[in-house]
Amino acid sequence: MAQNQSSAPDTSRRSARSRRAIYDAALALVAEVGYPKTTIEGIASRAGVGKQTIYRWWPSKADVLLEAFLDLSNQTAEAAGQVPYSIPDTGDLAADLKYVLRATVDELSDPAFEAPSRALAAEGLVNEELGRRFVAQLLEPQLQLYVDRLRAAQEAGEVRPGIDPRIALELFVSPLAQRWLQHTGPITYEYTDTLVDYALHGLAPR
Amino acid sequence: MAQNQSSAPDTSRRSARSRRAIYDAALALVAEVGYPKTTIEGIASRAGVGKQTIYRWWPSKADVLLEAFLDLSNQTAEAAGQVPYSIPDTGDLAADLKYVLRATVDELSDPAFEAPSRALAAEGLVNEELGRRFVAQLLEPQLQLYVDRLRAAQEAGEVRPGIDPRIALELFVSPLAQRWLQHTGPITYEYTDTLVDYALHGLAPR
Repeated sequence: MAQNQSSAPDTSRRSARSRRAIYDAALALVAEVGYPKTTIEGIASRAGVGKQTIYRWWPSKADVLLEAFLDLSNQTAEAAGQVPYSIPDTGDLAADLKYVLRATVDELSDPAFEAPSRALAAEGLVNEELGRRFVAQLLEPQLQLYVDRLRAAQEAGEVRPGIDPRIALELFVSPLAQRWLQHTGPITYEYTDTLVDYALHGLAPR
Repeated sequence: MAQNQSSAPDTSRRSARSRRAIYDAALALVAEVGYPKTTIEGIASRAGVGKQTIYRWWPSKADVLLEAFLDLSNQTAEAAGQVPYSIPDTGDLAADLKYVLRATVDELSDPAFEAPSRALAAEGLVNEELGRRFVAQLLEPQLQLYVDRLRAAQEAGEVRPGIDPRIALELFVSPLAQRWLQHTGPITYEYTDTLVDYALHGLAPR
């Protein structure tokens, strides 16, 4: 018991180090060889841990990657000085949306995020079960933040009452996603600012 | 000469038949095994032609697939009673966009289109050269039709003068593309109609 107590912090530090090494290895591997060729054995070998260590914590490679991506998103947000999983509400919807989309532009152009995300998105296109799982657990929670922000804007009278927020958010989120996924155009702050202006004020004359 | 003249129609019919068989084989194969495992040899074998026949007409598998997809798009449009590569201009922008997007909903749910398109899009995400080529030659020409239609609407006073049509079209095209690519939501006529209404009239009160 005494020994356990004194070694607990070491064990915990070691676990945290192993976890971090496994996340890094999983993201690097999926970026380099794609999802189908990423294996638990490969992740373990690259992370310098036994594969039983991985199986003890996660049932499958999809679960390791899901957690690694959640961790990456949190880290990226914190590094940018933002609170992860939040959209500011300053009372100015256009300014808040532009702010968050500019941060997304930065994230999408970060190589640490770009390569593994692209590999995973590609697999999600042809592997429907994996795609749906990652959308439900990674993408949809982020989209729900826009739903919440748009609902608040509706209550404040900045968005028309009849609008469905879950569809409305796609007017500025999906164009950025498609440009990033399919290289259909440059991704800049000016571009995402323009999307917000067009979405809020519409294309037709007022 | 006389012999050549009499056999020309046969040769031409045979060529057309081979071409069709090659298109079908290429699309079926990419849908089944993905782009990396699709080979000229595999396409030739499935189409029942010699691989030299394919190399005589196309320099690479990317070129075969590009042409097969162009042909598929034209066929799908014609089967739906539409003129390929055109957007109607009835003078009512909302109605015209809703009409074309409903046709796209039908196309996206057609299995003959769905599986090969998805396989190719997935490869385009991680194979930037292929992705850019297919966007430039397949997707961008279709997006330009929306640019033209939005420009006509600008001249008719249905779209504000300052709007950039190439960005504006993404407000209704990209959401549909993302829902289809990433399974982020159901794809229905009601959904695409809603996108058009939101894009034209905006989210903010008028």
